[in-house]
Amino acid sequence: MDIRIPRGTQDILPGTSEKWQYVESIWHDICRRFNYSEIRTPIFEQTELFQRGVGDTTDIVQKEMYTFSDRSGRSLTLRPEGTASVVRSYVENKRYGSPDQPDKLYYTGPMFRYERPQSGRMRQFVQFGVEAIGSADPAVDAEVIALAMEFYKEAGLKGLKLVLNSLGDQESRQAHRDALINHFKPQIDEFCEDCQHRLEKNPLRILDCKEDKDHPLMETAPSIIDYLNEESREYFNTVQELLDKMGIPYEIDPGLVRGLDYYNNTAFEIMIDGDGFGAISTLTGGGRYNGLVEELGGPESPGIGFALSVERLLMALDAQGVELPVEKGIDCYLVTMGEEPSKEGTAILTELRRAGIQADKDYLGKKMKAQFKTADRLKASFTAVLGEEEWQAGKINVKDMSSGEQQVIELEQLTAYLNEKLEGTT
Amino acid sequence: MDIRIPRGTQDILPGTSEKWQYVESIWHDICRRFNYSEIRTPIFEQTELFQRGVGDTTDIVQKEMYTFSDRSGRSLTLRPEGTASVVRSYVENKRYGSPDQPDKLYYTGPMFRYERPQSGRMRQFVQFGVEAIGSADPAVDAEVIALAMEFYKEAGLKGLKLVLNSLGDQESRQAHRDALINHFKPQIDEFCEDCQHRLEKNPLRILDCKEDKDHPLMETAPSIIDYLNEESREYFNTVQELLDKMGIPYEIDPGLVRGLDYYNNTAFEIMIDGDGFGAISTLTGGGRYNGLVEELGGPESPGIGFALSVERLLMALDAQGVELPVEKGIDCYLVTMGEEPSKEGTAILTELRRAGIQADKDYLGKKMKAQFKTADRLKASFTAVLGEEEWQAGKINVKDMSSGEQQVIELEQLTAYLNEKLEGTT
Repeated sequence: MDIRIPRGTQDILPGTSEKWQYVESIWHDICRRFNYSEIRTPIFEQTELFQRGVGDTTDIVQKEMYTFSDRSGRSLTLRPEGTASVVRSYVENKRYGSPDQPDKLYYTGPMFRYERPQSGRMRQFVQFGVEAIGSADPAVDAEVIALAMEFYKEAGLKGLKLVLNSLGDQESRQAHRDALINHFKPQIDEFCEDCQHRLEKNPLRILDCKEDKDHPLMETAPSIIDYLNEESREYFNTVQELLDKMGIPYEIDPGLVRGLDYYNNTAFEIMIDGDGFGAISTLTGGGRYNGLVEELGGPESPGIGFALSVERLLMALDAQGVELPVEKGIDCYLVTMGEEPSKEGTAILTELRRAGIQADKDYLGKKMKAQFKTADRLKASFTAVLGEEEWQAGKINVKDMSSGEQQVIELEQLTAYLNEKLEGTT
Repeated sequence: MDIRIPRGTQDILPGTSEKWQYVESIWHDICRRFNYSEIRTPIFEQTELFQRGVGDTTDIVQKEMYTFSDRSGRSLTLRPEGTASVVRSYVENKRYGSPDQPDKLYYTGPMFRYERPQSGRMRQFVQFGVEAIGSADPAVDAEVIALAMEFYKEAGLKGLKLVLNSLGDQESRQAHRDALINHFKPQIDEFCEDCQHRLEKNPLRILDCKEDKDHPLMETAPSIIDYLNEESREYFNTVQELLDKMGIPYEIDPGLVRGLDYYNNTAFEIMIDGDGFGAISTLTGGGRYNGLVEELGGPESPGIGFALSVERLLMALDAQGVELPVEKGIDCYLVTMGEEPSKEGTAILTELRRAGIQADKDYLGKKMKAQFKTADRLKASFTAVLGEEEWQAGKINVKDMSSGEQQVIELEQLTAYLNEKLEGTT
């Protein structure tokens, strides 16, 4: 009889939603400081966008998309990630024509992948992300990485580890690709079916395979680092030099391969070493995608970005026992007795709230004692009591719940009185 | 070749997204003051939720839902409105068991209806809404209405008009329903096919019909006001009395009928009289739904809520020429010349941003003059110039863009210098 929430999705309820608001407020503020502006793209896009923008050979496109037809027969897909949509918007709105390049954009919002739900992996999950499109300056790579690191730090996470790699430019990737094919081809029949398909299409992704990760050929596979051409190597060096200047430590991991097809040059992940959250877990990853804008119909415009999962961030904060500063009581709880004082209370609340004060009262006809209990539960800073007697006299009894101090004041003075007392406490 | 945004959806781009952020911040703050807490429900729900919670006879369910099957064959629907999901969550999470009733919840987020796109009507649109579930006190009705009015006022809208009606309790509605059937039945074949279906199922909705709005029987149709029983009448009177006490003016319109099936007692709309935005346009509507929680499997729990369209709010603000306070320049633009100063600049930016300063620099290798132009476009409060000479000497040249005043300071003093100068300007 009951209708339940769809599998793999969650309600974010009061008590938790404040944590979301808190990390969002940090995110918005950091993006503002780094001079990124918010973009909001639709929840669904034409299916073709993700087929081309994420890549036909990825698990996302092949297995995990929520695809459906609208009533006119168009194939639409709930966005599985944010980059393709942002780039689509960059192209469609001709943002490459603006003199301010790179176009520094950020987003927040739900993404959708049909996966087996498990801890930290939901079918609807929320990503924060940034994209900087229109500059091939390695300083942009460093900036994007710095933004991600700064966000996690300010959110309160400890034990952050930045891992860096270069996937090289097209020439370097091609050389590496050929080397990978030569390396795996002779024994490819010992690998899983997926890997056999990957060999010709995208051999880099064999290195990502969980099923074959213990095959001896994995460890001896040619490293991209050895196939970087002069230009790519210099680019990678500059990114490292800038991170050094910024005081951001990192490790280089030549095995770091991003799952999406369109990455090149810089790839990075931020991990955390946390008890109870798996040994070392990846919080976010990103990298450069210098061919994506063209793939989606725009002019050659190099881009870089990353996306992070808010669910994972909150899990990590929880695992580290970080207390977010979200527990706050209500400013004033109004206790009323009698019909007229209760009605008057509704008007009093309106005035308090208009003046910026967080205030509430009882709406269940509770007795006085129960109303005080509610005030306690709501951690009221002040309780204001209006009985028949006070109401007749135009007075109200205000109690400071931290000091226990009580004072009867003119009813019409209440807002001014509370505003003065509350000043500096928020 | 190009992949375009789906029809009826929009990108909210920089320049506009700041307006969204601004009205959202007002919304969150007002909800906080009224002591409503945020709830976030999934973008899609089981289709049955809306069939039951919105109502099988509504246009929304019959014609406008984005319904699809997931990979396991479950029928899911992108939420067309917020109330059904919030009530589903209230029931599923047994929130009726908390001593703090009503459960005062608010939400923001995208909703989806497959309609013909037109000005102010998108297939994906954003609603702000509140639901207060678990109290039948008319003071809650007054509070919810006050919250909506306060929000529009603080957003800057003028010419607001609150329209009020009562749809009565179940007994009153039944009496009115019978009267409507008796009224329309003799001439129902002169009405459209939809209305003929509505006659037995939900005759109230005939009054909403756009096609038959000029039929003579419409004007003479029995008014719900004349069928309110004693209790409903008293309830309605109390809501009005409380609004009077709050200083919120209203008009009563017995013809105000809400499109959804589950409303009873209080119904309201907030309209605006604005040039260029249609003669009088409805901004939001809401009302009481005392049967919905039971319909969705919970215990009897009276609720009330409303939802408003953010797109319509922004259109109305625009039509009234309201300038939202969102135009703000960047704190500091860093102009660099030479390779090393440019690299050093990346580190300087990081330090400024860590200290809360909004700062940026060039990433395209632009000449000095072009960098100054960018600083102007970004409305920088300060420009800091780092050439080879300054860099060698460990100095930087800072220009206050409003006064034109320039000063050469120690590079390591820059953050402290700017923080002092910027204090009080944000």
